[in-house]
Amino acid sequence: MSRRTGGRTVCLPGKPAVLSWASIAGQKEYAGPHGNEFDEIIPDELNGQQSFEAAERSLLESAVKRCVQRVRCSLEDVQMLLAGDLLNQIISAGFAARNLQIPFYGLYGACSTMSESLSLGGMLADGGYADRIVCATCSHFCTAERQYRAPLELGNQRTPTAQWTVTGAGAVMLGSGAAAEGTSIVLTHTTCGKVIDMGIADQNNMGAAMAPAAADTIAVHLADMKRSFDDYDLVVTGDLGQLGRDLLIELLEQKGIGVRPEKLFDCGCEIFSPQQDTHCGGSGCGCAASMLCAHILPQISGGKLGRVLFLATGALLSPTSSMQGESIPSVAHAVVLEHKEGSVCSKC
Amino acid sequence: MSRRTGGRTVCLPGKPAVLSWASIAGQKEYAGPHGNEFDEIIPDELNGQQSFEAAERSLLESAVKRCVQRVRCSLEDVQMLLAGDLLNQIISAGFAARNLQIPFYGLYGACSTMSESLSLGGMLADGGYADRIVCATCSHFCTAERQYRAPLELGNQRTPTAQWTVTGAGAVMLGSGAAAEGTSIVLTHTTCGKVIDMGIADQNNMGAAMAPAAADTIAVHLADMKRSFDDYDLVVTGDLGQLGRDLLIELLEQKGIGVRPEKLFDCGCEIFSPQQDTHCGGSGCGCAASMLCAHILPQISGGKLGRVLFLATGALLSPTSSMQGESIPSVAHAVVLEHKEGSVCSKC
Repeated sequence: MSRRTGGRTVCLPGKPAVLSWASIAGQKEYAGPHGNEFDEIIPDELNGQQSFEAAERSLLESAVKRCVQRVRCSLEDVQMLLAGDLLNQIISAGFAARNLQIPFYGLYGACSTMSESLSLGGMLADGGYADRIVCATCSHFCTAERQYRAPLELGNQRTPTAQWTVTGAGAVMLGSGAAAEGTSIVLTHTTCGKVIDMGIADQNNMGAAMAPAAADTIAVHLADMKRSFDDYDLVVTGDLGQLGRDLLIELLEQKGIGVRPEKLFDCGCEIFSPQQDTHCGGSGCGCAASMLCAHILPQISGGKLGRVLFLATGALLSPTSSMQGESIPSVAHAVVLEHKEGSVCSKC
Repeated sequence: MSRRTGGRTVCLPGKPAVLSWASIAGQKEYAGPHGNEFDEIIPDELNGQQSFEAAERSLLESAVKRCVQRVRCSLEDVQMLLAGDLLNQIISAGFAARNLQIPFYGLYGACSTMSESLSLGGMLADGGYADRIVCATCSHFCTAERQYRAPLELGNQRTPTAQWTVTGAGAVMLGSGAAAEGTSIVLTHTTCGKVIDMGIADQNNMGAAMAPAAADTIAVHLADMKRSFDDYDLVVTGDLGQLGRDLLIELLEQKGIGVRPEKLFDCGCEIFSPQQDTHCGGSGCGCAASMLCAHILPQISGGKLGRVLFLATGALLSPTSSMQGESIPSVAHAVVLEHKEGSVCSKC
């Protein structure tokens, strides 16, 4: 039985359920407009650890544990962890998986990791390959700065197009439709991203590099589903930032799509206030992940949002590829999250 | 419907088919005992590219294209590419996906990537989420040396426990059971690995770090399936090397498993001859991937092997984690590959 729409979008007729979720963030994120919505705030960058890297993985571990405990499960009840992060060799996810002892598939999708994990996890839960799957990711300002840019101690000037890597993590537990008692959110469709590269090579302008990937996935998703912006209460992007969000609107309009800008919610634009001096906004895997869990899922659960298209975007560069003069390939995976009541699909 | 055995092993009752495969390797691999079995040999380390990194991604691209062409498909007919590699931010896979334009899920499982991609791809094909999925990975001696160890120009002395990163790639196309006409190999089960860390911290002794993960996955798989070594014609590990293979046998015996050493085939031990001075053998994602496609799949297809347990093992360290004094967490994912005739499972 094929579950494909004919395009790149896959129907999940079993309607896997979002069983629980958890978010955790740092002090700068706490000072932002959504600070009170995170489940947990860490006291400082080190969170009691010896290094920023150890602190980052402690965020991921805490988010996963909190997510699992919320539905009174133990870690042994979770059959798969789909996780990744921005660090070389995804050590945050790998080391967290060592401590959590949940069977682990490591992912790398840069800042698209949250929707990559939900996309894969949604299909695996829909197909009955696991009853409980945790999808999770994290990022940390201090680890990302020193790995991708320069030592923090240098105090480098930031360019106007730069974004600020979010210190935070998010974890979502998916379950088979049968386990959906007590939860009101289902994952109904997913669209796998293609890698798009429009030739942007400026590492300090990730929004411009990622906007074309987001535009491609949104356009393909809407065409596959024969839907428009009107069919969604919100289209949530990960961390395009101010410039990337503007470009996304322009690119979608070029594709002939009637954009409803008031429905375009970019986590990177929203997580910090303009007074926080982050230039184009937040970024990092943890940006979309923590905002999804702190701000979006509670609104779907509470019935304020009926149907959301969530797509995190990732820039698949490395410092090596940039030093070798390569441009920045990007990807965006999309998932449809809906309130259980009223979730109807004419295709499945 | 749950497809779980009760343990960590998942049954794939739709029996996704291995539709095609392709391998590519370098000159040193060509000089090894299986040199004639690879589909393509590159002329030198650069393979006509400007950098070793560009050469590595050209291997992956070539393997995927060859795999797709072999069944007279075009790249547009492939709905998902599940791929990863050893480089920071998996740039080989990301940049190859940019050129191939196949919707792309990026994975990171270090040297376990080939079985990670087959494990995920097997479930997605079984569930009907895609009709054609390509699972692929690659590695390159020159990129791995300079990223993980030291510049090649230093000519560092290698320790006796060191392994030699294979320059090579492998790609496997999976399809739904219905597409299995003309192919004789099916993927029937998969066991997801847990991250295991026994405290080995020597970056030059990956075999010792990875053997416990392989032992764990093999033991869990055999227990889940109520099978023994006798039920497999071959148990293929990725790149444990001589020392790791010896340790694996010891660890399995400690777990009370009757090991049949003549059935344990480690790609790292086999790809080079002792005269090639690679110390403990080959390693890297491309080792298991290229040997699977060059040496194992043809034997299953030809009826010489009936049922094979294939598990690649990955060491989830990074240079940063090692410099911070961390030990080496490892993971191994397993898939069962069988000749279609006689493939029977009492569980599904």
